[in-house]
Amino acid sequence: MTNTFLEKLHPGFSQTIELAGAPIIEEKSQFQHIRIFDSVRNGRVLVLDDIVQLTTRDECGYSEMLTHLPMLEHGNVKQVMIAGGGDMAIAEEALKHRGVEVVFNVEIDERVVDLSRRHLGDVNAGAFADPRLKVQIEDAFVFLADKASRHRFDLIIADRPDPVGPAEVLFGDTFYERVRDALAPGGFAVFQNGVPFFQPEELTDTLRQMKKTFRYSGVYLAVVPSYIGGFMALTWVSNDAVLGDPSKWQALDTAFAASRIATDYYTPAMHRAAFALPAWIERLVRA
Amino acid sequence: MTNTFLEKLHPGFSQTIELAGAPIIEEKSQFQHIRIFDSVRNGRVLVLDDIVQLTTRDECGYSEMLTHLPMLEHGNVKQVMIAGGGDMAIAEEALKHRGVEVVFNVEIDERVVDLSRRHLGDVNAGAFADPRLKVQIEDAFVFLADKASRHRFDLIIADRPDPVGPAEVLFGDTFYERVRDALAPGGFAVFQNGVPFFQPEELTDTLRQMKKTFRYSGVYLAVVPSYIGGFMALTWVSNDAVLGDPSKWQALDTAFAASRIATDYYTPAMHRAAFALPAWIERLVRA
Repeated sequence: MTNTFLEKLHPGFSQTIELAGAPIIEEKSQFQHIRIFDSVRNGRVLVLDDIVQLTTRDECGYSEMLTHLPMLEHGNVKQVMIAGGGDMAIAEEALKHRGVEVVFNVEIDERVVDLSRRHLGDVNAGAFADPRLKVQIEDAFVFLADKASRHRFDLIIADRPDPVGPAEVLFGDTFYERVRDALAPGGFAVFQNGVPFFQPEELTDTLRQMKKTFRYSGVYLAVVPSYIGGFMALTWVSNDAVLGDPSKWQALDTAFAASRIATDYYTPAMHRAAFALPAWIERLVRA
Repeated sequence: MTNTFLEKLHPGFSQTIELAGAPIIEEKSQFQHIRIFDSVRNGRVLVLDDIVQLTTRDECGYSEMLTHLPMLEHGNVKQVMIAGGGDMAIAEEALKHRGVEVVFNVEIDERVVDLSRRHLGDVNAGAFADPRLKVQIEDAFVFLADKASRHRFDLIIADRPDPVGPAEVLFGDTFYERVRDALAPGGFAVFQNGVPFFQPEELTDTLRQMKKTFRYSGVYLAVVPSYIGGFMALTWVSNDAVLGDPSKWQALDTAFAASRIATDYYTPAMHRAAFALPAWIERLVRA
């Protein structure tokens, strides 16, 4: 019998991933069911509560677009906070920017961090070796309330799962208010916002919420094959700046070359392209 | 028991689509096994030899990017040939351009045409009602050899399946030579070229072949969730013109507005964005 993992995230549709060998990790933490295995096709896979979080073969589209895009357009990100992201794949990308002074990676589940450190070195070894990384085992929702009184971030990245279980608070009005108060002048926050082909309301609801709390907000796109359904929506907010500002795009090629960061997905051309929306997503955004 | 369709196109990975009700069509034609059914999530689905060809919910990304993109950049397409495309979804998009004089849709399997006419009206009713549509039941490979002696096309669209079975000739050198000889001055041909995440060689092999036969060639991208694996590669060739020419992009917004064509995916911004390639696809293209 073939050893397979079946993901039934969206009603009416499922994906099956064939494993290469026996599962590496299969355990229940305080918060969730954690699995790590090698797949025949997509490299090593991290699964939380039966949903694919990352495959080493295509996490680049997700991690790079949540980091390099806002960081290069901002131009001077020093203080970064990551909400979730226990696998440290996003932290690893953020830390590739030499100007970054600190990355607070706030993950509620210590087991995800420990197991990712041990088994997902391909995507996080650089992060764990970097003294600028501060791993906080804490609810990002609580951390923001505490930290916001004394700390401001140039970039907050919400590597949040879907709005169920412990992550539900990361989709509430209070969360957005805390993000707003924790942003430094000129700062951005960016958010995982689901796959609009299967989860259109996750995008429309979020954008409606964001408009209440932030002066500027919007959406850009990435394509991560393992997040099934085509385009993934990434949303952004700011109190005082626009992300996806064409007047800043001329400078991207020089800035990216100067950064000497090697990427698998991000390029300045993909940066500019990410703000183009298919007509059906444009309609969702206007809704 | 739930009624499902399982697609095992790529080794190590499969997708399962839940049906809404009993299958509508399930038969074997002279060339292939044909299925049409309604799905819970993605509308009506056409399956040939166990591979999803089209769902009414997301064919827009495919059909619109193979038609409106080259047609608007060309600016004066009158004569169109479609190789394959028996479902007439692409013909329907091409015929939305008022300047088009004729669309030869050359499909080898008459049953696909008949069943699509009867059951896929959502995506082709306009085409079948249009006197400019010429349906040719013939091998496109043969049609091109015959027709090329007396006919030149401004646009040839190869709506070819994967390079197996009867479609294999549509990936051979001789096919590209026939396409080359059938192109009018300034004309383009565009090709379905697989999902590079799962089929990288289909892209690299094709681009290598194209360079032998055409002066200009390249790739652009579309995202069609049902063609699992993220980005779909669409390739283009020409004897004397460049597709994806930024000097023509200024005019797109006006031209598209003037066409008064309603789309679900194509926009001039998506047109420009389609030529941006993720770093890993750029590397494939340079290989």
